[in-house]
Amino acid sequence: MADYGKSAGKMLARIRSARPVVHSITNYVVMNSTANVLLAMGASPIMAHAAEELEELVHIASSVVINIGTLSSPWIESMTMTAHLCKVEGKPFVLDPVGAGATRLRTDTAFQLITSLPTVIRGNASEILALSPQGGITRGVDSVNEIEDAMDAARSISDSLGTVIAVTGERDLVTDGTRSLIVHGGHPLMGYVTGTGCAATVTVGAFLAVEKDPLAATASALAFFGLAGQKAAEVASAPGSFWVQVIDALYNITPEELEAETRIDEV
Amino acid sequence: MADYGKSAGKMLARIRSARPVVHSITNYVVMNSTANVLLAMGASPIMAHAAEELEELVHIASSVVINIGTLSSPWIESMTMTAHLCKVEGKPFVLDPVGAGATRLRTDTAFQLITSLPTVIRGNASEILALSPQGGITRGVDSVNEIEDAMDAARSISDSLGTVIAVTGERDLVTDGTRSLIVHGGHPLMGYVTGTGCAATVTVGAFLAVEKDPLAATASALAFFGLAGQKAAEVASAPGSFWVQVIDALYNITPEELEAETRIDEV
Amino acid sequence: MADYGKSAGKMLARIRSARPVVHSITNYVVMNSTANVLLAMGASPIMAHAAEELEELVHIASSVVINIGTLSSPWIESMTMTAHLCKVEGKPFVLDPVGAGATRLRTDTAFQLITSLPTVIRGNASEILALSPQGGITRGVDSVNEIEDAMDAARSISDSLGTVIAVTGERDLVTDGTRSLIVHGGHPLMGYVTGTGCAATVTVGAFLAVEKDPLAATASALAFFGLAGQKAAEVASAPGSFWVQVIDALYNITPEELEAETRIDEV
Repeated sequence: MADYGKSAGKMLARIRSARPVVHSITNYVVMNSTANVLLAMGASPIMAHAAEELEELVHIASSVVINIGTLSSPWIESMTMTAHLCKVEGKPFVLDPVGAGATRLRTDTAFQLITSLPTVIRGNASEILALSPQGGITRGVDSVNEIEDAMDAARSISDSLGTVIAVTGERDLVTDGTRSLIVHGGHPLMGYVTGTGCAATVTVGAFLAVEKDPLAATASALAFFGLAGQKAAEVASAPGSFWVQVIDALYNITPEELEAETRIDEV
Repeated sequence: MADYGKSAGKMLARIRSARPVVHSITNYVVMNSTANVLLAMGASPIMAHAAEELEELVHIASSVVINIGTLSSPWIESMTMTAHLCKVEGKPFVLDPVGAGATRLRTDTAFQLITSLPTVIRGNASEILALSPQGGITRGVDSVNEIEDAMDAARSISDSLGTVIAVTGERDLVTDGTRSLIVHGGHPLMGYVTGTGCAATVTVGAFLAVEKDPLAATASALAFFGLAGQKAAEVASAPGSFWVQVIDALYNITPEELEAETRIDEV
Repeated sequence: MADYGKSAGKMLARIRSARPVVHSITNYVVMNSTANVLLAMGASPIMAHAAEELEELVHIASSVVINIGTLSSPWIESMTMTAHLCKVEGKPFVLDPVGAGATRLRTDTAFQLITSLPTVIRGNASEILALSPQGGITRGVDSVNEIEDAMDAARSISDSLGTVIAVTGERDLVTDGTRSLIVHGGHPLMGYVTGTGCAATVTVGAFLAVEKDPLAATASALAFFGLAGQKAAEVASAPGSFWVQVIDALYNITPEELEAETRIDEV
């Protein structure tokens, strides 16, 4: 069995030393909070969406995040262009299909972006089910399914696309179709703060910037983000102060702590 | 005299158990903070504005919030469409006419949205005066009037439209034209945090999702939000930590506390 | 030597008493946080970008902030219009050329806005170098240069445009071409929070609203913002809680404290 803790710690150390540029084209709701998540852990966020500058920005970025949380036509065009540029430039990118299954626009946009073969797709169980041939049901942007419900869908999407799929919930599932991992951590208070899923996604983006194995990068990122949630919940018991503490924990957690506290099981 | 505390407590309990979906089409400044307000109290926020998905989203929402804080043509079209969909589907919706009176665009947009007959309009005194036939003066997006100045305007708009009007300030006035209530609570520090008016509006949105009487829902929501401000001010004395505590209070206040501490007078 | 502390304290007192309206047309990432920065210090922020209302808003504003952090064509048009309106109305405005040098779109947009002769331009060393004839290198939106590298560029831009240039970093340089000042303060944690540069810019905007000498206003604003960072770092050691404390400090610092603690050197 691989020593996931050790490799997670090494990746975090690389983020802290390299300060990789992570370019996000994301929703309005989480731009501030996910930029802060990236900065706190040691990465360098860029947020931009103008078609005129995407080529230059993808070029200087070490990894890219595409999040469909607040769509409109020009943004869909820019996201499609960004995904295509990542494919052409060979830049790792993670897709967050927020609300796929809730509306046709979101499901269609997610499917369109998938044609550029994201390195990783991270969603909740409902969103991942919506991207599988059998489909699923999404209630708003919050999941109505457990990760177990989405396990087969995740493996089958992963198999057909060669993309790592992460299904996050109480525990997180990460699969590349062949290998599947369960990542432990996190805290129920995360469900009471907006954009925690989006924050997990940008964390995956930062780890993809410093690690070539996307399965290991994704599982390590989710272990790190989950650990930040656990640490935060040790000192905060309500969502306002909890989020402040999550940001502090992303800054304070050392590679050694991450190594010691990462809990990842192969399934 | 109705027991407003008791019914406010019951509404909060219903929000906590039903976790109603509240769809917001709102301004960029407060998307993150008002999503967090809704999540902290127990509701499920959606933020979206694309015309292509509004029909599906209004359909799954239990209530809708329209806030004109940062306008542009495509957003005005989407807001108009959303208001119309609410009318057609019979979904309760609350309008926040941010800056009505400050610019012609805002005043005109507010008047256009009002033709879809919002369930509730919540504004500060200057904004509500700007929507009355006699008009008013707004300085930027902050009120230059007291709620007393807007009492007649509120009653007359309410009478002519059949809409509940809430005028918030040091105390809050809620009227359906016939019945008028004064809601006590809140704290001056609220004036030093952006989007507290918008946050009060989404709170009204959440209460409308679980209560058919819009006057009672609105007064209860404002009592709840004001109580959160008071609780926050017991432990914080400056705006940064105050807002963190407001979010915590929205999560921590129990239905029993709200019942005990609600202070609503009939006038 | 001028008593910069004394005049900084007086300006802060004027902001607290006059509550000047500061209109921002800025990027999505920092709208919430910079509105909170302005409110905490005592100013009245407006955030708006619709061409239809810019004339009315510039008219009621005491000063204007233009920040190019998240561009697109309609926003560039609105920014250009806003800059032009400021010039016509004689309203002081500060330009934040976020990411100038990183992409052609940003550099071009900054140069276009400069033709309306901003009262102040505030950027990091890389951004200011990008606006000088000799050019520079920007890595994403974070600076790769020290303020010393940009000193000549700052003086030469200032000379040719008659604009005050502020180059912020570990220490801040402010020059009007003839006089040059170094402002001490701030804290390294500022680099771990998104939008601290943008927050410094809106602080300059607020001080421009109450002080006619743009060199003194800019240096005083940066001294005030830097002091808030120092005060915050006395009680917080990680970026989440640090930012909460910065906002609290902007509210709590008295004119007397600012007078006593301002450290500005002529160079």
